[in-house]
Amino acid sequence: MRNRQWRLASHPKGMVREADFELHEESLPDPSDGEFVVKVDYLAFDPAMRAWITGVDTYVSGIQVGDLMRGMGVGRVVASRSAAFPQGALVSGLFGWQEYALCSGGSPEDARVLPPGTPPTMPLSVLGITGLTAYFGMLDVGEPEVGANVLVSGAAGATGSIASQIAKHVVGCRTVGIAGGEEKCRWLTGTAKLDAAIDYRTEDVHARIRDLFPKGIDVFFDNVGGKILQAALANLAIKGRIVLCGGISSYNDAAPGPGLPNYLELVIKRGRMEGFIVLDYASRFGEATKKLLEWVEAGKIAHREDIQEGFENAPQTFLRLFDGSNKGKQLLRISDEGRDGRDTASTR
Amino acid sequence: MRNRQWRLASHPKGMVREADFELHEESLPDPSDGEFVVKVDYLAFDPAMRAWITGVDTYVSGIQVGDLMRGMGVGRVVASRSAAFPQGALVSGLFGWQEYALCSGGSPEDARVLPPGTPPTMPLSVLGITGLTAYFGMLDVGEPEVGANVLVSGAAGATGSIASQIAKHVVGCRTVGIAGGEEKCRWLTGTAKLDAAIDYRTEDVHARIRDLFPKGIDVFFDNVGGKILQAALANLAIKGRIVLCGGISSYNDAAPGPGLPNYLELVIKRGRMEGFIVLDYASRFGEATKKLLEWVEAGKIAHREDIQEGFENAPQTFLRLFDGSNKGKQLLRISDEGRDGRDTASTR
Repeated sequence: MRNRQWRLASHPKGMVREADFELHEESLPDPSDGEFVVKVDYLAFDPAMRAWITGVDTYVSGIQVGDLMRGMGVGRVVASRSAAFPQGALVSGLFGWQEYALCSGGSPEDARVLPPGTPPTMPLSVLGITGLTAYFGMLDVGEPEVGANVLVSGAAGATGSIASQIAKHVVGCRTVGIAGGEEKCRWLTGTAKLDAAIDYRTEDVHARIRDLFPKGIDVFFDNVGGKILQAALANLAIKGRIVLCGGISSYNDAAPGPGLPNYLELVIKRGRMEGFIVLDYASRFGEATKKLLEWVEAGKIAHREDIQEGFENAPQTFLRLFDGSNKGKQLLRISDEGRDGRDTASTR
Repeated sequence: MRNRQWRLASHPKGMVREADFELHEESLPDPSDGEFVVKVDYLAFDPAMRAWITGVDTYVSGIQVGDLMRGMGVGRVVASRSAAFPQGALVSGLFGWQEYALCSGGSPEDARVLPPGTPPTMPLSVLGITGLTAYFGMLDVGEPEVGANVLVSGAAGATGSIASQIAKHVVGCRTVGIAGGEEKCRWLTGTAKLDAAIDYRTEDVHARIRDLFPKGIDVFFDNVGGKILQAALANLAIKGRIVLCGGISSYNDAAPGPGLPNYLELVIKRGRMEGFIVLDYASRFGEATKKLLEWVEAGKIAHREDIQEGFENAPQTFLRLFDGSNKGKQLLRISDEGRDGRDTASTR
């Protein structure tokens, strides 16, 4: 069986390029005892993957040049010598950017069997790492209370959209989202039903934050960093919390950016800025996935998937995250079998 | 009665200068009903006062040009029409930079009576705001556990010296202090008995931190900011805490400094950076002062006072904080009556 893979060709300096990946073709070995083969239907893309390819170990080991590009996927077991992963099972896992994955199922991250009937993209979006990141980041790190003033950056993105709706519709906070472009902002106030949206491309973010938060920000869930984080810091409420989920504005900087000139606002405001990694909450993933599914089914959380097509487009699909092209969770369908007629429209 | 005052002459731009203050003389009115007059013996100086004179309101209102310079002092009631503050009582309070203060005793911050026999400088140092800041910052915000790896910057300063010894001798942490100059570093390992000291004037702080904290820093108590904070961030342990007490390295910057280019380390390390203001803990000052006194008397905490002389030297004594001249809590004796034969030597 022939298998195509995208491998890392170079550690990007500055903005990641398609040329930082190269297509590789090889024959797939048959599964040994305990192993199984997954035909991958969907790949999922996340800004955090930019940190994996710098050549440096972070919370996970760095990907080296020549290695298969790491990434989450969903697919079906097409050959198996593992009782736990029978042929035909729908599975999700860190299959990497390849058409077929030979797996041993060593850990739930590597591969886990999904309940029959699971919509195949949801374990990659609202019921996967993305939704779980929003859940634990907003609720456990941000600790918003009913009526709190909450701001979310990257709010039309995969994680930000879930985080902001949890604050708004589950906790009952006054919630404002920041996103790029009119269409995304309209989605935030229309579909996600947030209290307001700020378009960072056309508006003065600092002035809009100041006007929308006369009492200051109690919880800021940040996916972006840079000037947006500085503006939020300057408008933090007393005892405000900043949940550091990511900082996409600096991921492709060739040199360290200016960082946070006004971090001492944390002293004046008695504020807290805290980072987290969703994998630390693995023991509670079951609880969280159940709640997220409940909220989706109850219509409290709208989620949005941006599904591109074709295995050959993996690198350029990844790049969509960094120019803001993606509308919701960025996915790539790489197999005809995964096709189910759905499009990139919002789903509730 | 003639009274001399130091008033703010200009909001400093960049490094504060003696010329930013001007000496003023006026006659002191007699106390009205409920008022009393304090003859001030000692003034206390703190880096946070630099923020008060920028002309901007922060956690306290800013001091305006022409206003009496605000500051803590200790003195004796020399005239009184207040039963709560009888003549002869030893009192501490926000008397300002003046020889005599006409007070109404509206709040415990304005003036409070000290128990007879109190060593007159201790309510300005280890038993005052300085010691309380160390107590609540280290214990409540830092939450160090027995055996934790703790780093303190400005560790030979008034607050840092108490914070580091609480970590070392009360909680039982492995504790390293950063200070400027050989004499201060010797005090840290000799008198304060910390595990190690780093001299930021002559050593590579980043390399020394890395070598001294192979498992990372669990709690960093920061009085300094800048490159020292960056180095600590880069060496934070998983779930490490940064207690933001202050950032003296930037207080006299004319323009905002580079801030924190590596703040996203907080994500990778699941770290927390938190500011605090000691006044928020006012309801627990009694409990904390009692414990601090116990620890001083038990020999667990050495404290150090740097006592300069002469009311006319108030501005230049304040400036000692910013070139690191002060050895421990910076005080100024402005009255002969306060003289008790002690000098700037360490006291335990």
